[in-house]
Amino acid sequence: MTRFVQSEMHPQRWGSPDAASDLPASARGLIEMAFGLDERPASPAVSVPAPRIAEGLLEGLRELVGDEHVVTDDEVRRLRTRGKSTPDLLRARAGDLDDAPDVVVRPDCHEQVAAVLAFAVEHHLAVVPFGGGTSVTGGLVAQREGFAAVVSLDLVRMKRLLAVDQVSMTAVLEPGLRGPEAESLLAEAGLTLGHYPQSFEYATIGGFAATRSSGQSSAGYGRFDALVVGLRVATPRGELVLGSAPANAAGPDLRQLVLGSEGAFGVITSVTVRVRRRPAESLYEGWHWPSFDAGADAMRTLAQTGLLPTVLRLSDEAETAINLARPDEIGGESAGGCLMIVGYEGEPAANAAKRAAVTAVLEGLGGRCLGEEPGRAWAHGRFHAPYLRDSLLDVGVLVETLETATFWSNRERLYTDVKTALESALGEGTLVLCHVSHVYETGCSLYFTVAAKESADPLPQWQAAKAAASDAMVAAGATITHHHAVGTDHRPWLTQEIGELGASILRAVKADLDPTGILNPGVLVP
Amino acid sequence: MTRFVQSEMHPQRWGSPDAASDLPASARGLIEMAFGLDERPASPAVSVPAPRIAEGLLEGLRELVGDEHVVTDDEVRRLRTRGKSTPDLLRARAGDLDDAPDVVVRPDCHEQVAAVLAFAVEHHLAVVPFGGGTSVTGGLVAQREGFAAVVSLDLVRMKRLLAVDQVSMTAVLEPGLRGPEAESLLAEAGLTLGHYPQSFEYATIGGFAATRSSGQSSAGYGRFDALVVGLRVATPRGELVLGSAPANAAGPDLRQLVLGSEGAFGVITSVTVRVRRRPAESLYEGWHWPSFDAGADAMRTLAQTGLLPTVLRLSDEAETAINLARPDEIGGESAGGCLMIVGYEGEPAANAAKRAAVTAVLEGLGGRCLGEEPGRAWAHGRFHAPYLRDSLLDVGVLVETLETATFWSNRERLYTDVKTALESALGEGTLVLCHVSHVYETGCSLYFTVAAKESADPLPQWQAAKAAASDAMVAAGATITHHHAVGTDHRPWLTQEIGELGASILRAVKADLDPTGILNPGVLVP
Repeated sequence: MTRFVQSEMHPQRWGSPDAASDLPASARGLIEMAFGLDERPASPAVSVPAPRIAEGLLEGLRELVGDEHVVTDDEVRRLRTRGKSTPDLLRARAGDLDDAPDVVVRPDCHEQVAAVLAFAVEHHLAVVPFGGGTSVTGGLVAQREGFAAVVSLDLVRMKRLLAVDQVSMTAVLEPGLRGPEAESLLAEAGLTLGHYPQSFEYATIGGFAATRSSGQSSAGYGRFDALVVGLRVATPRGELVLGSAPANAAGPDLRQLVLGSEGAFGVITSVTVRVRRRPAESLYEGWHWPSFDAGADAMRTLAQTGLLPTVLRLSDEAETAINLARPDEIGGESAGGCLMIVGYEGEPAANAAKRAAVTAVLEGLGGRCLGEEPGRAWAHGRFHAPYLRDSLLDVGVLVETLETATFWSNRERLYTDVKTALESALGEGTLVLCHVSHVYETGCSLYFTVAAKESADPLPQWQAAKAAASDAMVAAGATITHHHAVGTDHRPWLTQEIGELGASILRAVKADLDPTGILNPGVLVP
Repeated sequence: MTRFVQSEMHPQRWGSPDAASDLPASARGLIEMAFGLDERPASPAVSVPAPRIAEGLLEGLRELVGDEHVVTDDEVRRLRTRGKSTPDLLRARAGDLDDAPDVVVRPDCHEQVAAVLAFAVEHHLAVVPFGGGTSVTGGLVAQREGFAAVVSLDLVRMKRLLAVDQVSMTAVLEPGLRGPEAESLLAEAGLTLGHYPQSFEYATIGGFAATRSSGQSSAGYGRFDALVVGLRVATPRGELVLGSAPANAAGPDLRQLVLGSEGAFGVITSVTVRVRRRPAESLYEGWHWPSFDAGADAMRTLAQTGLLPTVLRLSDEAETAINLARPDEIGGESAGGCLMIVGYEGEPAANAAKRAAVTAVLEGLGGRCLGEEPGRAWAHGRFHAPYLRDSLLDVGVLVETLETATFWSNRERLYTDVKTALESALGEGTLVLCHVSHVYETGCSLYFTVAAKESADPLPQWQAAKAAASDAMVAAGATITHHHAVGTDHRPWLTQEIGELGASILRAVKADLDPTGILNPGVLVP
């Protein structure tokens, strides 16, 4: 079973302090060799600005959701400040929590969300929907100018499993459920969502939908947007209820306009998802490939012959060498080449049949099975990488991730261009690692991890590298984000991707649903 | 190989006169018994109204696309009048072609489409994009009031295969390609789209995209919207180019706003689709089920265990009895119960493996394999039903189809309610047949065929029945259309399905892309 995490995250670090750990000795040696160790003093316990909101407004909000659910305590507001990108952490470590909300409001149901939005329209309050707080693209950084105050609309009380349909295999979930909480409730009915992004332990159902999240088992279960068959949304102009059938021809699919809307069009108050029976057996194995290209071609073959396992993930030579797929053994032995993780979840007979077919394809293409040990190591450490980032930041190593996707024939170019852009921007000694973790018949994602020695001013250092990588993605005709979403950080590149007219459509929908622009101002919409 | 059809369709009948046939003797007997035979005199060769468009406008259009591609001939305009719903045919048979366009304009490329749209904005011409003319929901019936004239924008010259990517397994197709034409071009590269709706021989790539078409092999290849990875669209406000990756998190998926937009937001000028290798083997077999419920439950089991064949189709008891799944043998022998067609297309080894697994499931659930003969009969007649409708209209039998979709747990209710609504509206002796031909993990489509004795005034007779069936769908929480689209006929029910706010979003997008409302006025947007 997965850990059931309830604690909130400090703005300077990822996750629960209990789960954090020091760098393994092996990793420490490697880091020292690559970057030198530059122990940073513990970051000061920074304070948030005092709430800038009139007492009358607080009083009005209390009438809507109850006194105890309108909170202005510093600690509560601190824990709702920004998200978890490296720039977010760097700002917090430097003592800057200027983006803290003025008040945290916790509605209990759709009607209370709707009431808060109506109140916010009336008094021109900016509203930032808050789920797990795991955004890595600045999705929680509200634009303050022109608003009476900034409200963090915390969905923490909306954690119900509203309905289960065992015939249709659907479930209706509230947005505030974190990954493990949703899985735990579904497990009581013998079901699973099968959605395991790296942020699984903290991120929420509403956030998965609002950002088009994709999980580590996407090959088997599908992206989160593919799991959604229905949505209920509260907007400043009223309610939107979508999902009359699994698919239809009743005009454009408006569900796909809410998915990825990042709180800028409305607040998702329930999500109807496709569910599956809980797998009776889960097994993950490692495969060795002589090169990243050979492994990626094998993934393509599996996708295009309809033989996808549940988990399919390939590290490039650099990531394999540093063993990042196995965080417990960073810097340990590596056999060279590229490591692929192949996982099967389901009934034993179906797993065995799929595994036999996949194994035949992979062996035919030059792969070598390494058995289940590397698979177990990956499964054990699969949610741990963000903790590692904290440990590296502690010793002066700048670490961040970024990701994109493209069609198969463009994969090599995209890989080379983004890697080159990052290395050029950050200079000698920069480490760029990459893996493919989401595949489609027509293409795949590329997920990069970057490490470099921190300069005296790491924020602009990273921002320049990020801009160079983003430019390279757009120039290659790829997407600015496969599953991290747009937020504020990717917004400058979105118009290049969808065009001026695409941006105009987003503005038109925003103006229709949120005419006064109170919802997550500055996020997503160009 | 499929027939390669080039001829255009007369407004009173479906398809090519060469392919039409008289009622088989067996069917004739059955029809006589059920409804009586009421031979109708051959419909008069009706004339279209004279073109109502100023010569100066024609001159301007000629400058954009060339003299020979601006056509006002009666015959050409007659063949672009309305679509192929039974009401469309009844109106044409009654001599009413009042909805004829004033001029048919044939652009050759994206730039010419864009130029025609700019001209139409300037002179306030209504523009009706025209592909195969197979709409059965009034999608080609432009609202004339307030416009200087109605232009049929015929995409017949845009029939190129623009690009093939054998690595990514994608192809870029122009919108005017009919089904067989697209397949023929792709076949030269060893590829297939695998999209076979009943209108396959006439309908076009642009139409498939604009209406979210679904084909008879949707279980294996997916709905058309699932095949689309990219789109280029000409709108009055400029160009829209979408599709930077198979999937992404770069905000809402705007492709899904163009898919299903029915020419009301823009004109699709190219579509990038996922393609597959041409199957080495195709085989279709029949299965017998004791009841519709038993067969539908078996389909659900296949969908929910990830064991879908390429074709999966189940007729209810009535449709099985009348043998509509085998149009050549209407009224022939039937074994009772329900007929299911199960088809496999692919490599022989993969087909054999899939077939073994599917067979085990179906046998375990009480199905009985009838061998390949019923499958061959279905495949032979799969595009023939619309011809049969013409033959029945000729003898005074009103025939029409309608379709919907819902989640599995709502299937029985929806089936009963729609059937009851149709029988109540049309009175004793009405024949209502049904099949399931598109399945998903969470639900399925229901496709109804209705036959009744024509009253003296068949148009209002059918409209009342259609309204009753549509009300029943909406009341059951199902969709107003699974794959026929909205057009003008379903528009009154669309707002009930997507809500007032959903309708508002469609209007906002329409206003943004087509501010003067020239594109397919009256279609889709509530």
